[in-house]
Amino acid sequence: MVDMLPKLFFVHFRETSFVAERDGELAGFLVGFLSQSVPEEAYVHFVGVSPAERGAGLGRELYERFFAAARTGGRTSVSCVSSPLNAGSLTFHAAIGFDASPPKAGYDGPGEDRVVLTRNI
Amino acid sequence: MVDMLPKLFFVHFRETSFVAERDGELAGFLVGFLSQSVPEEAYVHFVGVSPAERGAGLGRELYERFFAAARTGGRTSVSCVSSPLNAGSLTFHAAIGFDASPPKAGYDGPGEDRVVLTRNI
Repeated sequence: MVDMLPKLFFVHFRETSFVAERDGELAGFLVGFLSQSVPEEAYVHFVGVSPAERGAGLGRELYERFFAAARTGGRTSVSCVSSPLNAGSLTFHAAIGFDASPPKAGYDGPGEDRVVLTRNI
Repeated sequence: MVDMLPKLFFVHFRETSFVAERDGELAGFLVGFLSQSVPEEAYVHFVGVSPAERGAGLGRELYERFFAAARTGGRTSVSCVSSPLNAGSLTFHAAIGFDASPPKAGYDGPGEDRVVLTRNI
């Protein structure tokens, strides 16, 4: 996870990144940003929910916070990517209203296939 | 390098990212962005120069392009981070006018110490 989340995200994308705690422990987080190049779009870079917290709606709530921040930033759509092998992620994103592209071979580099997920907000 | 450079940077930060080619081959690149949270600042995420091209000013030229794009975006300072063990990077950044912080232990995660480099533009 360290490679996916250098500190820069927590310094430079604060308005669109959220941490959830329960009893002082990390329960989940979402890191995203307003696209600099695509003015109608916001992008979710990374989401994590603690195993003990799964299935209770925390992922959905983190996304709802992000959608609200993206709307405040003038955005009308949200995108993210997921591995085509990550069935849990694909099921979750479908449940909260994302459409999935066909898998794109090598999207994030050699062997790193991705599905692009998009949703209007 | 793949972990540091998911495709999102080339989709969402196009105005502040540059690729240099020579005879159709990649010679160097710089990926950066305008900070979303720090309105006076731009950030350089990753720079690479091909071994055959080093020492000929290409790194400096990529930074000059980035400084110009950052000024166009209304920014007055640029920051980036480097490992305290990367003497080549620290020497290069000093030569083009960056000031270096003392090393910050665990800045990018456990064992990932960083020097923060800053320069006014």
